[in-house]
Amino acid sequence: MSGIQKVVVAGGGVLGSQIAFQSAYTGHDVTIWLRSEGSIGRCRPKLDMLRGAYHEAIEDMRGAKGEDDPAWCAGISDFEGFDADACDRRVDQAYESLVLELDLAKAVRDADLVVECMAEVADQKSAFFSKLAPLMPQKTIVVTNSSSLLPSQFTKVVGRPDRYLALHFANSIWKHNVAEVMVQDQTSQDSFAAVTEFARSIRMIPLPVKKEKAGYLLNSQLIPWLLSGLDLYANGISDPRSIDIAWTMGTGAPKGPFQVFDTVGLTTAYNIVEQYQRVPGIATPLLRKMMLPYNFKGMERVLKEYIDAGKLGRSAGEGFYKYDKNGNVVE
Amino acid sequence: MSGIQKVVVAGGGVLGSQIAFQSAYTGHDVTIWLRSEGSIGRCRPKLDMLRGAYHEAIEDMRGAKGEDDPAWCAGISDFEGFDADACDRRVDQAYESLVLELDLAKAVRDADLVVECMAEVADQKSAFFSKLAPLMPQKTIVVTNSSSLLPSQFTKVVGRPDRYLALHFANSIWKHNVAEVMVQDQTSQDSFAAVTEFARSIRMIPLPVKKEKAGYLLNSQLIPWLLSGLDLYANGISDPRSIDIAWTMGTGAPKGPFQVFDTVGLTTAYNIVEQYQRVPGIATPLLRKMMLPYNFKGMERVLKEYIDAGKLGRSAGEGFYKYDKNGNVVE
Repeated sequence: MSGIQKVVVAGGGVLGSQIAFQSAYTGHDVTIWLRSEGSIGRCRPKLDMLRGAYHEAIEDMRGAKGEDDPAWCAGISDFEGFDADACDRRVDQAYESLVLELDLAKAVRDADLVVECMAEVADQKSAFFSKLAPLMPQKTIVVTNSSSLLPSQFTKVVGRPDRYLALHFANSIWKHNVAEVMVQDQTSQDSFAAVTEFARSIRMIPLPVKKEKAGYLLNSQLIPWLLSGLDLYANGISDPRSIDIAWTMGTGAPKGPFQVFDTVGLTTAYNIVEQYQRVPGIATPLLRKMMLPYNFKGMERVLKEYIDAGKLGRSAGEGFYKYDKNGNVVE
Repeated sequence: MSGIQKVVVAGGGVLGSQIAFQSAYTGHDVTIWLRSEGSIGRCRPKLDMLRGAYHEAIEDMRGAKGEDDPAWCAGISDFEGFDADACDRRVDQAYESLVLELDLAKAVRDADLVVECMAEVADQKSAFFSKLAPLMPQKTIVVTNSSSLLPSQFTKVVGRPDRYLALHFANSIWKHNVAEVMVQDQTSQDSFAAVTEFARSIRMIPLPVKKEKAGYLLNSQLIPWLLSGLDLYANGISDPRSIDIAWTMGTGAPKGPFQVFDTVGLTTAYNIVEQYQRVPGIATPLLRKMMLPYNFKGMERVLKEYIDAGKLGRSAGEGFYKYDKNGNVVE
C-alpha cells in the first residue's frame, strides 16, 4: 500500500483527465481541481471519452491471447484472472466517483497527493504552486507531470522540498502503463518510495529516475536519436525515407525518425530543435553541450520549409511523407 | 541493368560469404578471392551453412501471409509470383557456381566489381588494395564493406578515385536486405549509379549516402541512442531494465539499449565507447565533438565491471540481464 488514497489532480487536460480516471479506476478518491467553469466544460467531454475508451479497450481485451497481444492494456488488468465484466463495472464506478472542484482549498483539504498537470508554462505553474502551498495539510506529497520543465525550478515555491518530485506519464496510460518517478535534489526517500508505490497501485510500471534529468528516461534517449536522423538529412547525407528504412530494417523498430516527426507533428519537432538550443533550464548542461555540434540551423531550415508549405505531419495529410485520409502512407 | 556481371568478393568471412552467395543467387558470376588454403578451409563451411539457411528460409516462406510476415525474406523473392521450387534450384545453382580462388590476378582479370570484405584492420586493407590496384582492368569498380573505417582513408592506395566507394550490408542479407551506398569525395556519379543498380540487382534496397559519413545511416543513429542510454546508467540516473522499458514501451521498439548491448556483446559495446573517443578517423569531427560531453569514463567503468565479471552478454549467459540456455531472459 502506498498510503496514498486521496488524490487531487490539478488540471483537466489530456493527461490530467487520464491520470484522474486511472486513479479512480484503481480505487482512489479523486478530485480534479479546475480553474473555471470553462475548464469544467472542457474537462467533462474528456472524461466521457475516457469512459468510452476504457470500455472499448476491455471489449478488445476479451479476444487477446496474452499480455503480449497488441490489444492488451496492462493498465486495466492482469491477463491472469481477467474479468471483463468486473472491469466494466469499475470503469463506470470510476466515472461516477470523480469529483470536479473549483475551490482549491476544499479540493486539497485532506489530500495525500496533488498531481500538477497544468499547462507547460513556467509562470502558470509557479502561480498555481504559490496558491497551493499554504492550503495543503502537512502530509500532502506534490508531484509535477511536466515533460519539459525541471521540477527543481519550482521547489522553492512548492515549499515542501522533501515531499515534492516528478511523476511523468506517457499518453493513453491505461495502455502505455509506465510512469517515470523522478526526484529533485531535496526529495526524501520516503516520498520517492510513496510515489513509486502509488504508481504501482494505479497499475503503472514505475521507472525510477534517481537524479533530476531533463527528458527523463524516454526523451533523453528519443531526442538524441531523432536529432541524429534529422542531422543526416539537414546535412544532405541522405533522404528521410532512406534514413527511416536504415533504422526500421536495422533495429526492427516500427518507426524511423521522420515517421515519428510526422506523427508528433513538425511544429513539435521544430519546437524541440528550438528549445534544445535556446531556452535555459530545459536541457541539463550536459544535454545542451551534447546537442550543440549538431547542425541546428540546417535542421530548422529543413523543418521550416516543410511547415511553411503546410506539410505539418500526418494529421495534415502530409509531412515528410504523404498520407491518405486513413493516415496511411501513399506513393 | 547495373552492367555489373562479374563480381569478385575479397574475403570469405561472415559478410563476404553472404555477399558472394547472394550475388550468385541473383545470377552474377562470382569469385571469392581468399588469401590461403587455410582461408578456403574456413570459407567452405560458411557456404555450406548458407546453402542450408537459404533452403530453410524458402521453406518458411511457403507459409508466409505476405511481405510483412516475419518469415518473409525479401532478399530471396518478391511475395507476388514466389516460386519456392525455382528459388531452391537457384540456391543450389549459386552454390555450385561459386569460384574460390587464391590467385588475385586471375580472380580480378575481368572483374566488373571488387567487393572488399577483409578484416577491419586498416593495415590489412591497405596491403590488400596496393596488391589489387595494378591487377584490375580499367573498368573495375571497387567497393569496401567496412563498417568502421572511412573509405577516403584508402582512396589513394586504391588508385581509381572515381570508381571507388562503399557498399555496406547488414548481417543475414537475404533477410535484412538493405545496402548503404556511400560515396567518398571523388566518387563519380556513374560509379554511384552503377553500384546502386547492382545493389538493386542483388535484391537489396539501396540506401544512398551522398556524403562520406562515419557510421553510415544506421550506426549514425544507433550509436547516439545507445550511448544516451548507457550515459543514464553510468550517471546513476536509473537502471538498465528501467531505461530499456522506457524505450520499448515508449516507442514500440523490440529492444532497449541494454538489450542491444547484450545481443552484440559487451566487449563490442566497450570497443564502441573506446573508438568514439580515441581512434582518429573513425568518427567525423562532428560526431566526435557530439560525443565528448557524455560521461565516457563512467560508461567504460560500468562496462568494464560487467566484462571483468564475465558478464559479456547474451551469448555468455549473462550481461545486463541473465539468460537461460535458449537465450531467453530469466528472473
